[in-house]
Amino acid sequence: MKIAIDGMGGDNAPKAVVEGCIKALKEFNDIEIYITGPEESIKNELSKHEYDKNRIQIINATEVITTNEHPVMALRKKKDSSIVKALNLVKNKECDAIISAGSTGAFLAGCTLIIGRIKGIERPAIGPVMPGKNGAFMIIDAGANVDCKPQYLKQFGVMGKIYFENILGQKNPTVGLVNIGEEEEKGNELTKATYKLLKESDLNFVGNVEPREVPTGDVNVLVCDGFVGNTILKMYEGVAGTLLKTIKDEIMASTISKIGGLFLKPVFTSIKKKYDYKEYGGAPFLGVEGICIKAHGSSDSKAFKNAIKQTRIFYEHDIVNKIKKDINSNKTEE
Amino acid sequence: MKIAIDGMGGDNAPKAVVEGCIKALKEFNDIEIYITGPEESIKNELSKHEYDKNRIQIINATEVITTNEHPVMALRKKKDSSIVKALNLVKNKECDAIISAGSTGAFLAGCTLIIGRIKGIERPAIGPVMPGKNGAFMIIDAGANVDCKPQYLKQFGVMGKIYFENILGQKNPTVGLVNIGEEEEKGNELTKATYKLLKESDLNFVGNVEPREVPTGDVNVLVCDGFVGNTILKMYEGVAGTLLKTIKDEIMASTISKIGGLFLKPVFTSIKKKYDYKEYGGAPFLGVEGICIKAHGSSDSKAFKNAIKQTRIFYEHDIVNKIKKDINSNKTEE
Repeated sequence: MKIAIDGMGGDNAPKAVVEGCIKALKEFNDIEIYITGPEESIKNELSKHEYDKNRIQIINATEVITTNEHPVMALRKKKDSSIVKALNLVKNKECDAIISAGSTGAFLAGCTLIIGRIKGIERPAIGPVMPGKNGAFMIIDAGANVDCKPQYLKQFGVMGKIYFENILGQKNPTVGLVNIGEEEEKGNELTKATYKLLKESDLNFVGNVEPREVPTGDVNVLVCDGFVGNTILKMYEGVAGTLLKTIKDEIMASTISKIGGLFLKPVFTSIKKKYDYKEYGGAPFLGVEGICIKAHGSSDSKAFKNAIKQTRIFYEHDIVNKIKKDINSNKTEE
Repeated sequence: MKIAIDGMGGDNAPKAVVEGCIKALKEFNDIEIYITGPEESIKNELSKHEYDKNRIQIINATEVITTNEHPVMALRKKKDSSIVKALNLVKNKECDAIISAGSTGAFLAGCTLIIGRIKGIERPAIGPVMPGKNGAFMIIDAGANVDCKPQYLKQFGVMGKIYFENILGQKNPTVGLVNIGEEEEKGNELTKATYKLLKESDLNFVGNVEPREVPTGDVNVLVCDGFVGNTILKMYEGVAGTLLKTIKDEIMASTISKIGGLFLKPVFTSIKKKYDYKEYGGAPFLGVEGICIKAHGSSDSKAFKNAIKQTRIFYEHDIVNKIKKDINSNKTEE
């Protein structure tokens, strides 16, 4: 398969991007990479590594879209940006997938505007897979759609289920609705109406899931609007980060606790590994006419390599067509 | 002052409630308590303690509203419940404040329907104060209003500011809008419109606060709709709980780490204390014609005592009248 990589996306671009590509080429012999960005600077990074030159193409792009720019305006203005060039490779079927760690807004808008959404999908959605205590779980939508209708959320559930089943190998994954109460009648207008739709659907719907239960990972696919999903994602990062920082500060505050901290190093390493989002690659943007993976802005080369690994599985399992098929079969039923 | 206590509210009622009242009577000599519930069972609990009998009245109530009941229906049907009896004591000006650890839904609905809201307040809101890394912060609304208009959120900011300033002694506290992006133009329809209102207000508005930053406690009063606020509250509990449980499990998994765990006992005790919501008593329900405190369902006697302490400060600072004054002065300006 052919993968378009936004060479200038993310805090550590192009260095971490290029390193991730090199690692992936070594691990997977069935991929070719098209990396976009200023030719000289990408070449310079590549020159630090040994690799099969037939398997990496540099697509020159002189501009970069930053996270501070207005996504849609930037996409229109910067036709020669690394992200637009990468999106066009997928649009023109020169590549099968795109990965970017750049501006989330520009990436999501670009996937929808340039690559286009699947017919029948009302709103594409981003569905990161997160590490939970008892297993991985997906939040969909995690920020692409801040104002939603019940029907969108139902489709998020369908897309999330197909992705989770194929990529994480969980047959008939459970689907829950993020809500501030367990009972069917709880919540706001959106969740009350969505509950009914999910209950009537073919999904393995397990009802409302309170945010308190989210981090257990006991429910596989968690459906919500993008504002709530993004809040959950950021609270997850924020609370875990703050708490671990507090523990670290307290450990460093006395000699006794410093000694204890030494004994517990393997514990904290193991926890860090358990909650390492980098293991999961990037977040899939589902509902568009191509394989679109948003890597975390702070991705290192390992995260990039895992994102590439993820696009391979996405491709092998033909998820885009599976979503198409499911959405259209549901359409006829209604 | 006279305080009405729902003697049957919470997981540990009436035992923890009665114990909390006894502790408070010992600590504060200017309070009288009216405790509602089945006379015999309250008497039985009281008989285990020594106290000044002139300072506790039992108000017989034969029914209890559970958390599984529909709040408004239960309030209508169970006129002789401990919560309705306590609400009536405030409504009839026999008591100055009410504390309940019972059904949140019934308590909030009861405060609005029985005690009534302040004229000019569009929606009363619940604003728990939470422990943050660098200080306490308030989330308002944390669940009373799941579908909101921008004007409601502005009033939440005003009420939160008055409470925080008076109870936590923070002059001109900072007010932030919970949003999924820092820039003014980020968010959903509600937050975009609310941003404008808050910016134009007299509040010490510091702009959008991303959920990731919430746990730092760097912003004092965080304004949001009740669905988002409740999600934040429950994610805070859920992530912290899950993470600490994971650390505990990992520590217990090997002898080396068990030894390290022993060294770190003071660290974990200190963190537990730092993040102990019981220190803050209960969550104030602001915008109603009385002092209404919702204690946590799992409150122990210490949490009850602290909730009583909190109502005293609430009363001394005359917060209800300060809210009235501010809301009406804002009214004239507009």
